[in-house]
Amino acid sequence: MTDSLPPEATSVLAGYDVIEKEADDATLSACDALICWPRRADAYLLKKMKGLRMVQTMSAGVDALDFRVVPPGVPVFSNAGAYTPAVAEHAWGLLLGAAKGIHLRNQKSTPRAFRGKTLLIVGGGSIGSEVARLSKSLEMKTIGLSRTFRSPEFYDEMHPLSALPGYMARADAVVIALPLTKATNGIVAYDALSKAREKVVIANVGRGETVNEEDLIRWLKERPESRFATDVFWKVDGKESFSTKAWDLPNFTGTLHISGVPVGEELVGAKVAAAWNVKRYFESGAALNRVDVAEYV
Amino acid sequence: MTDSLPPEATSVLAGYDVIEKEADDATLSACDALICWPRRADAYLLKKMKGLRMVQTMSAGVDALDFRVVPPGVPVFSNAGAYTPAVAEHAWGLLLGAAKGIHLRNQKSTPRAFRGKTLLIVGGGSIGSEVARLSKSLEMKTIGLSRTFRSPEFYDEMHPLSALPGYMARADAVVIALPLTKATNGIVAYDALSKAREKVVIANVGRGETVNEEDLIRWLKERPESRFATDVFWKVDGKESFSTKAWDLPNFTGTLHISGVPVGEELVGAKVAAAWNVKRYFESGAALNRVDVAEYV
Repeated sequence: MTDSLPPEATSVLAGYDVIEKEADDATLSACDALICWPRRADAYLLKKMKGLRMVQTMSAGVDALDFRVVPPGVPVFSNAGAYTPAVAEHAWGLLLGAAKGIHLRNQKSTPRAFRGKTLLIVGGGSIGSEVARLSKSLEMKTIGLSRTFRSPEFYDEMHPLSALPGYMARADAVVIALPLTKATNGIVAYDALSKAREKVVIANVGRGETVNEEDLIRWLKERPESRFATDVFWKVDGKESFSTKAWDLPNFTGTLHISGVPVGEELVGAKVAAAWNVKRYFESGAALNRVDVAEYV
Repeated sequence: MTDSLPPEATSVLAGYDVIEKEADDATLSACDALICWPRRADAYLLKKMKGLRMVQTMSAGVDALDFRVVPPGVPVFSNAGAYTPAVAEHAWGLLLGAAKGIHLRNQKSTPRAFRGKTLLIVGGGSIGSEVARLSKSLEMKTIGLSRTFRSPEFYDEMHPLSALPGYMARADAVVIALPLTKATNGIVAYDALSKAREKVVIANVGRGETVNEEDLIRWLKERPESRFATDVFWKVDGKESFSTKAWDLPNFTGTLHISGVPVGEELVGAKVAAAWNVKRYFESGAALNRVDVAEYV
């Protein structure tokens, strides 16, 4: 484990040797599994892990992992789902807060109300499905676009991602909760945005790059009544940067990639989930959230 | 009716003569009921309405009504409930948006998450009860403080308003949805605020004056980790003013009394509700939301 583990997580792995943070070459060579943040799994570390049988990320997304340095045949597992309740709640905070205009502070505006309206969820994984569940109390019609749906019971309609522009035209609110893969990179582009309703509110809690930044800025300038709130931003030199020109626009707001880690939670739940998945793999040879490398490289 | 009525409202009153906006003295003298915004019911108008049998406000709150000019024995009915879905949704937008920090825009912050936490609702009327209902999807423990509760089934605990300071100490989120009466004026004062948890988020959708403005500003300065979001402000010279010094504080945000009228709704629902209540009174001698004048004067 490249980070420290809380007692709640080490107790899950009772009976196994758990090495935290630093280890000598002989120890690294003997390790069966690596729990890490994607950026920490570099060539330097992985070359030393000669006995490696699996990689488990701490993060839900694995787009920051350098798959070229993972030894062939070593499976990678993500921590999808570990941050879901917090991120889905954050998505609602972005969506409802922007709909009511609290980012505008002391300026006149008119609120958008969502009760009984149509919510489009782009990405039907764990987060998207929890966003869908939360929409039920507002009696929204919820349309999901995804390859697969974690909880189909929370959607009124389900369609493939390729249908995005057409369904954008029907939505009063949109939540984007996509992983960043070859297929989703830039999928929310001008052609889709330009189909949206005039007073639409869009929130992004997946990855910045699923939305084309230039297209978004162009569209927000053309459509002052539309609003966009995001927790995720675009990379500059390989690292997420919060300094986008979109901040100059009053119909753009956001938070600085904080959705997964609310006050007081301190990643304990995510570390416990990662530990459980490693234990599962050791004891059954299978685990949750196996990453399909072909989607990334 | 001092305003115009949409066809949806006039059709409710089919069979009655409905006079909109302007009328001569003879017509005013013959009217049985007045539908009005509280400020329009002045001495000049009411003196001419010699046959008046009831006053029905367009607004949910009646604190702006000059009760001294309403003839003795003429009952006043409020439009409580007419704006409830929009205002309760707005309360959640204020609460969740401020919890996530979207008013801070491009500044570092840590989000508060409410799932499984404790929500205190101050005022258990129609709006408070709808806020309570919406809290269920986040599995919150919901404590209501009120004289009466519109929908007791949505609260985990119910207590009188006098218990405010003690329950403030237990809440992670607070929604204030009180009418402004003699009893609620300034009820949220420093003694209650100072008991709140360090990272509390408070939203007010009732009336500005239920919160003591000076006490609020003092407390927000002392407690930078606490947040307050409001849709309602304090009167200056008898009129709600949005220019409070609280705007200088980063842990204060709000919207300019817009919660009741989202885009596209244009008061039709509220006017229909007022029309129904007048019809109810004409046909049965009783109607909903009768105001107890003693609470105001």
